[in-house]
Parts: sequence; C-alpha cells; structure tokens
Amino acid sequence: MTTIPPLAASNTRVKDARRLSRRSVRSERRLFLADGPKAVEGALGRPGTVVEVFATVAATASYAALVAAAERAGVAWTLVEDKALASLSDSVTPAGVVALCRHLDRPLADLLAADRETRLAALCADVRDPGNAGTVVRCADAAGADLVVLAGSSVDAHNPKTVRASVGSLFHVPLAVEPDAASAVRAAQDAGLLVLAADGAGEVDLHAPEAEPLLARPTAWLFGNEAWGLPDELAALADHRVRIPIHGRAESLNLSTAAALCLYASARAHRA
Amino acid sequence: MTTIPPLAASNTRVKDARRLSRRSVRSERRLFLADGPKAVEGALGRPGTVVEVFATVAATASYAALVAAAERAGVAWTLVEDKALASLSDSVTPAGVVALCRHLDRPLADLLAADRETRLAALCADVRDPGNAGTVVRCADAAGADLVVLAGSSVDAHNPKTVRASVGSLFHVPLAVEPDAASAVRAAQDAGLLVLAADGAGEVDLHAPEAEPLLARPTAWLFGNEAWGLPDELAALADHRVRIPIHGRAESLNLSTAAALCLYASARAHRA
Repeated sequence: MTTIPPLAASNTRVKDARRLSRRSVRSERRLFLADGPKAVEGALGRPGTVVEVFATVAATASYAALVAAAERAGVAWTLVEDKALASLSDSVTPAGVVALCRHLDRPLADLLAADRETRLAALCADVRDPGNAGTVVRCADAAGADLVVLAGSSVDAHNPKTVRASVGSLFHVPLAVEPDAASAVRAAQDAGLLVLAADGAGEVDLHAPEAEPLLARPTAWLFGNEAWGLPDELAALADHRVRIPIHGRAESLNLSTAAALCLYASARAHRA
Repeated sequence: MTTIPPLAASNTRVKDARRLSRRSVRSERRLFLADGPKAVEGALGRPGTVVEVFATVAATASYAALVAAAERAGVAWTLVEDKALASLSDSVTPAGVVALCRHLDRPLADLLAADRETRLAALCADVRDPGNAGTVVRCADAAGADLVVLAGSSVDAHNPKTVRASVGSLFHVPLAVEPDAASAVRAAQDAGLLVLAADGAGEVDLHAPEAEPLLARPTAWLFGNEAWGLPDELAALADHRVRIPIHGRAESLNLSTAAALCLYASARAHRA
C-alpha cells in the first residue's frame, strides 16, 4: 500500500478549491466548500453532493464517523497539510475538515412540479446578509418547508457564511435560485401555492382568526430584504400581505425571527 | 452668545466616554454609549437615561428631530470633531451621533413587585453573543414582554453590539441583571409567574393543545446559551420544559428564533 503524503497548500487541487472563495468562481464551476464537521456531515448525507473531502491528519483521527460516511458514499477522503486546510476555511479556528460540493440549487420549475406536492415554501427576495440567509434556511427546515427560493439580488446560498449559519439545513431543504423575484412569485402561484408576503404594513394579522383559513392552504411565504423590506410592487403581487402583530414598542422584527413566526404559523395550521 | 468649538478626541470628556468601550469601566461607572440615530432616539425617549449627546456638526444638521428631542429632555448636545466621534463609535461608518447613557438595569425584585403586573418575561441564562442578546430584547419588546432578565454569565446588556441589535428596544423593555440564574427563576416563581424553559428535549410541545392552558398564564420564559442550551439543573427548576416542534431535519433553532416563537406563543395565548 502506497501512502500519499498530505497535500500542501501549493497543490493544484487545493489551489483550485481555494478559488471557490469567490462567488464568480463558484457560479462558473457550480462547486462550493462546506467547512467544518457539521456541514460535511450534512453534505455527505445528501447523495451526489460531495466531490471530495479535504481533511488534516488530526481531523481524520477525530471524525471517524465522517470518514466512514465518506467511504459508504464512495467519496474520496484526501489528507491535506494544516496550512492547506486553513487556506480552504474562512473560519478563524478551522475544524480541519472541508467538503468540496456540487451546487445544491435546482430549477424552480422542477421543484414546483406537480408530483412533488409542495405545502410550504420560503421565498426570499434580495436577502443580502449571508448569515441571515442561512438562518432562514435553518428555520425553513425546522418548520418542515419543502422549498427555499433565493430570489432577486439575494446573496449566494453557497457562501461559506450561509452554509455555516444553516447548520446543515442547506443540505436538507430543496433550493432554487431565481434572479427575477416577480417570476418566482408567479411560478409559485401557478403551482397552486397561496403567496403570503410578510409585510409590517400588511392587511392581515398573522395571529388573527381570519388568518387561519389562509394559513391552512399550501403557502409560499415571501420575505424581503433585511433593511428595507419588500418593494411595494413585489408585495402587491402576493395574494395577501400579512403583518406580525407588534404588541410592544419595537418597530419591527428582524428577518429570521419574522420568517420563523410566519413559517411556523403555517406549519401549525397545516397540522391542525 | 459664545460658540464652543467642537471637542477634540483629546478632550477629557471625550476620553472618559471612550473608556466605556470596556465592560469593567461601564460596570463601575454605570454608564454606556448608545451609538447612532436609532439608539439615541430610543435613549432620549426614556426619561432620565441620557447624560449628554455627542454629535458631529454634520450629524447635528442631519438629525434636527434628535436635537429637538434632546432640548425638550434638557439634555446637553455637545459638538465634537469627526475624529472624536469616530473614537466613541464601534461602527465602521459612524453615523455621527452617540449618547452617553445611564445603565438601564434595575433590581429584579423591584421589577417583579406586585404592583407592576408582569404577564410576560424573558429570562436569558448565559447568553454570550451580544448580537443575540440584543435580538432577544427586540423580540421581547415586539411580543409585548414586560421584563427581560440577563442572568448567569450573560453578556453585558450595555455592550455596543447588544444596543445596536436591539434597534432601540433596550430602551423600551424593563431590564434586570441577575448573576445567579437559579435565583432569577425562583424570584419569578415567587412573583407568581409560571416558568417555562425552552428546551429541545422538553416534555411539552409548544404547539400542542395541552400547551394552551400553560401559555395562557403569566409566564417567564427561560432561555439558555446559544451553543449548549440550558444546564439540566436550571431546566429542572422550571415548572415545565417546552420544546418547539421540529418538522424537518434541522436539529434545533437558533436562540433568537426560538425566543420569538416562545414569546409570541404566550403573547397570542394571553390575548385569546
């Protein structure tokens, strides 16, 4: 048996992977890096996602379950030097394991196809903060959503900060990317989903009795940008605009807490 | 009329204020800085909070409503040089206005006194991330909570990142600090509040019908640390442990989204 020494930071494969820190390179190659044991575990749990795992000798010893999962999945586990691994991680304290993954998004039309029975979707328009996008994906997963759409000028779902903030959920929930947010709204409506816009000035109170019959229907929630919310013309395309009641003196909620409240209100109504 | 030139970064008052970036100095003097127009507006809206506002000439021209609010409140508005202002702000792009404020926390026993009629409280044990703490305060405000307690080894509520993440809510909701989290739980119970611990392994499902009568009662929600949750011995002190149902494959929710779901579930039950 020949033992291959750990790859150095100057190795061509490592250098190629390192270039995926740039969005343009990720988009062109449709590849990205999932950093840390939680993300690598999630990625290996989704068949066909991982191309190769890079790991230090120490992390290989620490994460035996991941090594076994990679072997079961037929995925190469490649030893790299500590410096090489650090060059692939955007973490201050890299955990020593990074997966090279294929992009996760699929065409929206495919994900909305009739045979998939979408009951709950989260449609984010122009979400700009990578951490927020990941947290919304995590909430959508927890609430049992069937689909997340990053629409308009939203951040890249494969940004390392988004992957980290999703804590594995990016690998659980089907994902679509649709640069034209209005098209995404119409596609959801054409697929039979009620589109509810989360809007601080909405005409329906999320917790009022009259919201119940709306929430019980198969729904796509439309969420806007974290700073300026939804543009009026996009909110107008939704079937209803729904506000979360503010009982105190806060002006609003932040994106991920608003998304959690809306998505869980639907999840609850669907199960009532 | 004598025009006082804008204070330089070397001015003693500016230097004294700058030292409030350290928690130990804030604690000793019971003063802190509220940075940016939103925070300054919130601070001026709470009588007796602001000692003095520092602002650049440009910000003074931009924020006429704040200047008027300071005047109405009898609070000094002090011009400072751009560099002096920047030295008081932890923002990369300072907005030009910072308020020197008195600490906001009051003794828990006072805030739980019978005449105040607390219906909903958020009790955070060992919350470590300043941004998370601020977001929880914002959610508590939105849900109409009467009280937030930062307990155990929680971050300083007067940390600049907490102030910013609360988007003014830190000045709206009564705040207590209690280093002994178990004491805070007992004090809430002694005041007649039902203590519900948010716990992924809790025996009560937040959205199950059997939760309704619990949620309808005056309640203190107990939230744990963002990474490791609640210590068992603290969760055991609560009257019930409540889990948010996970319908998908996420392992958990993050602190602020979990807090939003729990606090709003109570707010809704209280108004039903």
